[in-house]
Amino acid sequence: MNILMIDTSGPACGVALMRDGQIVCDMQLISGRTHSQRVMPMVDMALTMSEMTIADIDRFGAVIGPGSFTGVRIGVSTVKALAHAAGKPCVGVDALAALAANVASFDGVICPILDARAKQVYGAMFRAGEVPERLMEDEAMPLEAYLNAVEATGERALFLGDGVAAFRDAIAQRLGERADFVSPQHMNLRAASACALAAHQQEMDYVHLLPLYLRAPQAERERAAREAAGHV
Amino acid sequence: MNILMIDTSGPACGVALMRDGQIVCDMQLISGRTHSQRVMPMVDMALTMSEMTIADIDRFGAVIGPGSFTGVRIGVSTVKALAHAAGKPCVGVDALAALAANVASFDGVICPILDARAKQVYGAMFRAGEVPERLMEDEAMPLEAYLNAVEATGERALFLGDGVAAFRDAIAQRLGERADFVSPQHMNLRAASACALAAHQQEMDYVHLLPLYLRAPQAERERAAREAAGHV
Repeated sequence: MNILMIDTSGPACGVALMRDGQIVCDMQLISGRTHSQRVMPMVDMALTMSEMTIADIDRFGAVIGPGSFTGVRIGVSTVKALAHAAGKPCVGVDALAALAANVASFDGVICPILDARAKQVYGAMFRAGEVPERLMEDEAMPLEAYLNAVEATGERALFLGDGVAAFRDAIAQRLGERADFVSPQHMNLRAASACALAAHQQEMDYVHLLPLYLRAPQAERERAAREAAGHV
Repeated sequence: MNILMIDTSGPACGVALMRDGQIVCDMQLISGRTHSQRVMPMVDMALTMSEMTIADIDRFGAVIGPGSFTGVRIGVSTVKALAHAAGKPCVGVDALAALAANVASFDGVICPILDARAKQVYGAMFRAGEVPERLMEDEAMPLEAYLNAVEATGERALFLGDGVAAFRDAIAQRLGERADFVSPQHMNLRAASACALAAHQQEMDYVHLLPLYLRAPQAERERAAREAAGHV
């Protein structure tokens, strides 16, 4: 199984290649440039350095969110285009599940969280594993409500994701010694982790590949609020 | 602190860049080509994509082993050359410590092992942490002797490194449920992990950067054996 995985859902632009079931290339880049300028040159490099071409790929994977709305659309659009051109199927990988797969082993619950602004997080909970076992569905919710759910497990909790930078003090204050945090090099999503998960998922036609939005974009929420208030 | 890290000590060729204390680029490539053909193009890509030049680097890091003799020499030579050209210091990072830094969290001992051939391993033991705490020095030893040391801790043990592929069954048979293994995407050294460690180490002039060989290369061991037997 050969898989090309693209992640543009967060701060890093990531590309990974699996050849015959083994990760042979993994690249992450955090730059000032937008992911749309970076992702195709990175795909090209990954294939060239691995002496492969688009025709060698069996399935194309994208991290579908939750995450940056624009970033997710860039990744999904790129993968749809590649899959269409190559006549091959797609796989969409959940960003929080891929984050959880950064953790090799943990006795307790893995808590990937992304900063969803306005004191909200995108959060879920998993048990460590090659394919992390899901304990809670992805949700957009206030940090307090998420931490209630984590506390209710009665277990130790290992946090990672860009939500940690925003909420580390609040988490430590609330959960005390039961909260743990990964080192900086494990904090962000790795395309290799997403690629490993993509090997275990059901593939689909590219027309069915869709972003995973847990709530409407801010512009739509503001319009809905204005309409509800009778300002349109 | 800006660090350029090169790892050619094992099966993957890795390059990572730290800018202002943050990992901004991390690349791993496993290809049929030798690392000597891959490493400088990867350094060039990493710098170009990050919009940096050699002149922006404060220290150059190499993974110094234990590992492949040829691979380690390629990495150390490349970093010496870069440091000389740029007039900047070096850091040498231990391969087993960098492997241990792949593990975000673990209750027990982390056991990085490399296949040293002839039923020997290069092994050490660490406690999980941003800078893993060393519990045992790097040693080249028979697998059995290493597993004795692991068993003597009385703790759970998490194994990673290319020694797992060679010795997984023997480890599981010996330690039973106390042995655990990381998922494939965490099995090999990551340049980002080595780069994170390099930020915490003492820098040195490049003339002092040396490979870490735990035993003489096979050719030298064979010559010594021939000389001892009076065949020279």
